[in-house]
Amino acid sequence: METVLLTGFEPFQGEVLNPSWEIARTLSGETLANRFRIVAKRLPTAFSTAADELYSAIESVHPRAVICLGEAGGRTQLTPERVAINIIDARIPDNQGAQPQDEPISQDGPVGYFSLLPLRPMVEAIQAVGVPAAISDTAGTFVCNYVFYTLMHHIHTHNLQIAGGFMHVPYMTEQVLAKKAPGLPLDLMAKGVRAAVEAVVQSFPERPTLMC
Amino acid sequence: METVLLTGFEPFQGEVLNPSWEIARTLSGETLANRFRIVAKRLPTAFSTAADELYSAIESVHPRAVICLGEAGGRTQLTPERVAINIIDARIPDNQGAQPQDEPISQDGPVGYFSLLPLRPMVEAIQAVGVPAAISDTAGTFVCNYVFYTLMHHIHTHNLQIAGGFMHVPYMTEQVLAKKAPGLPLDLMAKGVRAAVEAVVQSFPERPTLMC
Amino acid sequence: METVLLTGFEPFQGEVLNPSWEIARTLSGETLANRFRIVAKRLPTAFSTAADELYSAIESVHPRAVICLGEAGGRTQLTPERVAINIIDARIPDNQGAQPQDEPISQDGPVGYFSLLPLRPMVEAIQAVGVPAAISDTAGTFVCNYVFYTLMHHIHTHNLQIAGGFMHVPYMTEQVLAKKAPGLPLDLMAKGVRAAVEAVVQSFPERPTLMC
Amino acid sequence: METVLLTGFEPFQGEVLNPSWEIARTLSGETLANRFRIVAKRLPTAFSTAADELYSAIESVHPRAVICLGEAGGRTQLTPERVAINIIDARIPDNQGAQPQDEPISQDGPVGYFSLLPLRPMVEAIQAVGVPAAISDTAGTFVCNYVFYTLMHHIHTHNLQIAGGFMHVPYMTEQVLAKKAPGLPLDLMAKGVRAAVEAVVQSFPERPTLMC
Repeated sequence: METVLLTGFEPFQGEVLNPSWEIARTLSGETLANRFRIVAKRLPTAFSTAADELYSAIESVHPRAVICLGEAGGRTQLTPERVAINIIDARIPDNQGAQPQDEPISQDGPVGYFSLLPLRPMVEAIQAVGVPAAISDTAGTFVCNYVFYTLMHHIHTHNLQIAGGFMHVPYMTEQVLAKKAPGLPLDLMAKGVRAAVEAVVQSFPERPTLMC
Repeated sequence: METVLLTGFEPFQGEVLNPSWEIARTLSGETLANRFRIVAKRLPTAFSTAADELYSAIESVHPRAVICLGEAGGRTQLTPERVAINIIDARIPDNQGAQPQDEPISQDGPVGYFSLLPLRPMVEAIQAVGVPAAISDTAGTFVCNYVFYTLMHHIHTHNLQIAGGFMHVPYMTEQVLAKKAPGLPLDLMAKGVRAAVEAVVQSFPERPTLMC
Repeated sequence: METVLLTGFEPFQGEVLNPSWEIARTLSGETLANRFRIVAKRLPTAFSTAADELYSAIESVHPRAVICLGEAGGRTQLTPERVAINIIDARIPDNQGAQPQDEPISQDGPVGYFSLLPLRPMVEAIQAVGVPAAISDTAGTFVCNYVFYTLMHHIHTHNLQIAGGFMHVPYMTEQVLAKKAPGLPLDLMAKGVRAAVEAVVQSFPERPTLMC
Repeated sequence: METVLLTGFEPFQGEVLNPSWEIARTLSGETLANRFRIVAKRLPTAFSTAADELYSAIESVHPRAVICLGEAGGRTQLTPERVAINIIDARIPDNQGAQPQDEPISQDGPVGYFSLLPLRPMVEAIQAVGVPAAISDTAGTFVCNYVFYTLMHHIHTHNLQIAGGFMHVPYMTEQVLAKKAPGLPLDLMAKGVRAAVEAVVQSFPERPTLMC
């Protein structure tokens, strides 16, 4: 059994839940294609600790794919992100009060990394199960983009055989019951993310049959 | 068994479905509080025929309440409407090609009618089952407002004992799979509308116990 | 010389200026069509005092038209309002801390009043000078709608020969320099409102020439 | 006299004007800081020809800075772009009918280039003259991002001493007179862009005084 690591974030900015983590833990333990098991990991919404917790999780579960989820309040669709960029520019403080402005994530890293996930198949798979989806061209410049860039930089600098990438998700309906902002129910978003993960694992080449 | 008439509209403006009718027919035949049965009726999205079809339905099922539903693409919440106004001002043609501009609905009717439904209890009941809701202050000036005003004018001029009103609903997710517009899944909206109808029937005074 | 009374509101909700008043005072004293002078009056953003100050201004300047302006943050166009409704439902406290919910403005007044201003000619006149405009179907349920309804009720109950109505305006650019909300510059909005007032006075019937 | 090259695009998608070009030609010929003259150049909204026309203009005027402008309908602010990415993914056909999907701009170019312009000073300078502004994190994946990436790649691969970058601008009010979309008047946007260009040239190191 191989592993897909699915991360979500702890709540931030006064919210009591974060849909990215609710989705990840909903799917935790599920098996896909008789071959991949989803392992969920919650990351802190903090620049100082998120990277180390991500590295630990990767070291601990040796994943074939890592899909990090994050909340994008105001969006209406599940949005696999196209590109991570080498910048931190925090509009609000993170959960530890840090708010860096216009700082690089990595002093010697490249400007950007493209996602290693199959973006278009993911979007089509999500829509095929009835959930709105689109490719997004920006993951912002807060902790989401930071974790996305950090993941990609780690994969590239360590030559890891990991399909890595990031997907933003809208608010959960629970968060917008009395707010004029779009939201989707947890079960629907979990269904969409499951379909996206299936599209990811289906993009892997078949293993050679070992004969002796 | 008493009746609650729940109307929805046929699709318009190139859409292949209309969430208002999908919700109404989903709830059709349900019984609430052991006393009220929901009867669903689909209305044409046309100024020339919608009123007569509404009157026929009312005459046929003698409802205790009439709740008309309509699609409000772009909204994020179920929105019971506060007021119907005596105007038609069509931004697009209706399903028969009619597009009146700045015309009164009723030559001698009042400027407006307030909804007879318990708006705030409806909103709270919808939110209580996990569905976003808010009171809306405008039903627009197209067929939705036309049907709403027509219903209220009919109730008032015929002294009917009917709790009448209107509620707009967002797009269904099916309509926005690849579109940057908010949507909610049908089952969730049906759950919210059911809760709203329950709030309506709970607002009715208890019937006196008949003894002999 | 006849008078057009143009009102604006004092700032509210933490803002330091209110575009409605900035526009009104910019146009104050101007003469239109050699016959009408604009008199500007600032109203408090408070339910308890706005009406009396409006009545005083009307009594003091005997206007031929009264056009009340109000701020509608988030809108992109100048929007003459179609209808005032008999309800107060304050989402935020007014400038004196009052926040009535679901209360009628007038116990015995009608549900609504249509604007007495020529809405479509106003919109066309505003657009003709290069300023975005549209008719709006809701003035909300806060102090703006309150003043609008109060004005119309006063005109109708006192049989005044006054063309009365309301127009909402977007934020001024000064208010949104660093905010993702639409705004228009003061001079452009003043130009649009001037054109709208001209459309109003042009809608008056010519006075009969008095011959002896 | 040194040169600042300011480019704009021809209209596209059925529009009859493009604010980016209207702004550029408004500022054409202006002198800044007694030392820099603005040269305006209109680029085709087409993948096949935009790059060559940009290269020709650079070769012809030997600019010290190149600031490309583009229209971002729906935005409310002038938005200097942070990053160009190595992808074309056209949502609509360009002006020659081409609509590439998920193609790299440069086969061997990097994933992204950061703008070489002083983004934060530009934003502050724009706001200081009363025009809304913010840094943007995505220039999209259409011809705007294509020209931005192409410019940066050209500067880097040819080791040019050019401060290059891109700024998106909202619709002009003329485009949204009857449309519910945000717009700003041309003169205001030109004022903001002029302030941004001044911030760019002020960021250049003083020239050494030549003494003999």
